[in-house]
Amino acid sequence: MPLMFRRMVVVGVGLIGGSLALDARQRGAVEEVIGFGRTERNLRWAKKQGVIDRFVMHESEVPHDTDLLLNATPVRAVPSSTAAFVPYLAPGCIVSDVGSVKGELVRAMDRLLPNGIPFVGAHPVAGGEKWGAVAARPGLFIGHRCILTPTEKTDAKALQRVSALWRRVGARVEIMDPDTHDIVLGVVSHLPHVLVFALVNLLDRTRVPGVDLKSYCAGGFKDFTRIASSRPELWRDICLMNRKAIGKSLGDYIRKLEQLKRWIDQGKGAALENAFARANQIRSEMG
Amino acid sequence: MPLMFRRMVVVGVGLIGGSLALDARQRGAVEEVIGFGRTERNLRWAKKQGVIDRFVMHESEVPHDTDLLLNATPVRAVPSSTAAFVPYLAPGCIVSDVGSVKGELVRAMDRLLPNGIPFVGAHPVAGGEKWGAVAARPGLFIGHRCILTPTEKTDAKALQRVSALWRRVGARVEIMDPDTHDIVLGVVSHLPHVLVFALVNLLDRTRVPGVDLKSYCAGGFKDFTRIASSRPELWRDICLMNRKAIGKSLGDYIRKLEQLKRWIDQGKGAALENAFARANQIRSEMG
Repeated sequence: MPLMFRRMVVVGVGLIGGSLALDARQRGAVEEVIGFGRTERNLRWAKKQGVIDRFVMHESEVPHDTDLLLNATPVRAVPSSTAAFVPYLAPGCIVSDVGSVKGELVRAMDRLLPNGIPFVGAHPVAGGEKWGAVAARPGLFIGHRCILTPTEKTDAKALQRVSALWRRVGARVEIMDPDTHDIVLGVVSHLPHVLVFALVNLLDRTRVPGVDLKSYCAGGFKDFTRIASSRPELWRDICLMNRKAIGKSLGDYIRKLEQLKRWIDQGKGAALENAFARANQIRSEMG
Repeated sequence: MPLMFRRMVVVGVGLIGGSLALDARQRGAVEEVIGFGRTERNLRWAKKQGVIDRFVMHESEVPHDTDLLLNATPVRAVPSSTAAFVPYLAPGCIVSDVGSVKGELVRAMDRLLPNGIPFVGAHPVAGGEKWGAVAARPGLFIGHRCILTPTEKTDAKALQRVSALWRRVGARVEIMDPDTHDIVLGVVSHLPHVLVFALVNLLDRTRVPGVDLKSYCAGGFKDFTRIASSRPELWRDICLMNRKAIGKSLGDYIRKLEQLKRWIDQGKGAALENAFARANQIRSEMG
């Protein structure tokens, strides 16, 4: 299979950036992967483990023939951390990201990048609760969606090349409007995270004399609340950047809960059973 | 190991009743297990599979020397379905249940049963989303809690015998006040079920033009919403019988969500991060 990129700089060698670096190297998609980050220990470790070929710690050190700058820093840091590279990127170098929120981000990037430096917004929908280069692993993206969110300004050729890279590492690439992406992910991913953070906090605040509530959170509850182990700063940023969609979903959800609460308080068995049966059916359609 | 009961009648040979029947027989805790239910096909199947020794379909047919009537019907049906057996039970026969709500149930049973027919409230905290005898399996209770909820009226010897039975099938037996049980399970089990039913229903109602939202509910969302596959009638009954504790938790939870929504709407990053970090820490303490 042909090389797709000569030199890929991965900014933020963590779970996503590191896993992409690993697979891109192993699958011969890039000639060289250069790590970039603030924490030298993390980069040294990544190099030793073969996640990256080498690393640099100053924007001015990125090779002049870098043809892909993959910014895998937490979503809110992407525009500012990319800006610092702009003076050092050669025309034609593609910039891409892996952020979980796209609307605000792609608009910022379109404003930020000069002509000749094409941007392709990307969101590989894969991951886990661990973070940092130690969490990187081969095959992370196999069978998972990678949603690309081009705008009017997006260069078609750049879109194609980024798409090919993600397909090479096993992802199912989809194209979606950035704002639609944020609405969809807001409901199926961001909202559930907020709900679980809130539930675990409620549990923390609930006192039952003589009972250690946490010890009753085995089984179902533990699986259910696993996503509360996700990185707090990341989820803060997602909530801030996708506040419109998350706020809307959360408002709709609160109204649903208020309705269920009324039915529970008033003992409306038939209404409760209907609601639960409907959810049951929908859930079974998900397989 | 000695026999604990001569004849155990299991009312409702489903996931819990059937699994207990299987293990009690296999572990020599009972001489004979007699199934009772409304659906002959289910009982025939259970007999054929060796879940029960035989079955009866009328209360008058239970053997006179039955020494344990284990009512494993859905929690709201327990008192009325037990009442029909009372004329046919010999003095000393213990009645027990497996219901997920205890306060209202144990009070009803204490009122219902005559002296000489001791009642022991029990809640084996095990299960799954499947139901019916086909879902019964050996070892279901191993390592799981079984919470016994005696009242002032509970016979100490009967409590001991029911406790020994559950320990024999591998459960970790605990004693808890019935109302405390309902508060604890209300938060760690009943509330999460209500939240997931509501989330799946919200998803069902959310329309994003050109996008099949359900197809985006892979991975995390699917694990998260698995409990929405639970039996609607059962959860209706749990909500009705534990309405006070669930209503209270749900109210507290709605207030938490409203606070998070305000922080999201107003872009209060530090407050969000604090809340998420706290949840993260609590969750990590659960292991």
